[in-house]
Amino acid sequence: MKIDLQNRDAAREIQALQDTIYVIGGKWKLPIINSICNGNKRFREIERSIPGITTRMLSRELKEMEMNKLIIRKVTPTSPVLVEYESTEYCRTFSPVIIAMIEWGLAHREKIREG
Amino acid sequence: MKIDLQNRDAAREIQALQDTIYVIGGKWKLPIINSICNGNKRFREIERSIPGITTRMLSRELKEMEMNKLIIRKVTPTSPVLVEYESTEYCRTFSPVIIAMIEWGLAHREKIREG
Repeated sequence: MKIDLQNRDAAREIQALQDTIYVIGGKWKLPIINSICNGNKRFREIERSIPGITTRMLSRELKEMEMNKLIIRKVTPTSPVLVEYESTEYCRTFSPVIIAMIEWGLAHREKIREG
Repeated sequence: MKIDLQNRDAAREIQALQDTIYVIGGKWKLPIINSICNGNKRFREIERSIPGITTRMLSRELKEMEMNKLIIRKVTPTSPVLVEYESTEYCRTFSPVIIAMIEWGLAHREKIREG
């Protein structure tokens, strides 16, 4: 039996790529992660920092991300209650992906402007 | 008027991030780019290299990516006609994003296996 290392690596890589796309799927998760990592804590702050997101969408994504341990929802029992979102260590593992995507987006815009 | 550099950068970054998500949106574009960059040229080769993709989906994505200059469709007038897909230089600018996502996926699977 021939072991084809080339193909095995490619298969493993495509699986890893598809895993990542699955976890961060959709338009909103990475922008939300980025916003919280940038220091936005309150719902309205996060909402304002992401153009185009609706209250309903943000609310749904935050709940899902809390369930998946991407963020922590911290409630301080002041009056009125203070709700703050914090990134977890797991959440911060996305930094290299987010940075690569920001860099691509900046270069892309630069290229479009040039001609 | 106070110029808030911090916020301006954050706004620019979120825009760049959203641009990138817009361009590579969906489940299939990055896996297809990755497959073609890995040397797969024929439709069936690309199809086989991406678990879960359907013929119809691949066909639609390839057409869209050809229109957006991400790939070149090369037809050789042999009998039967030979159709091959090639990545463009523009397509290859996604490498850092794809690599970051593959690395995240590999680390994620490792972490899940550990515990």
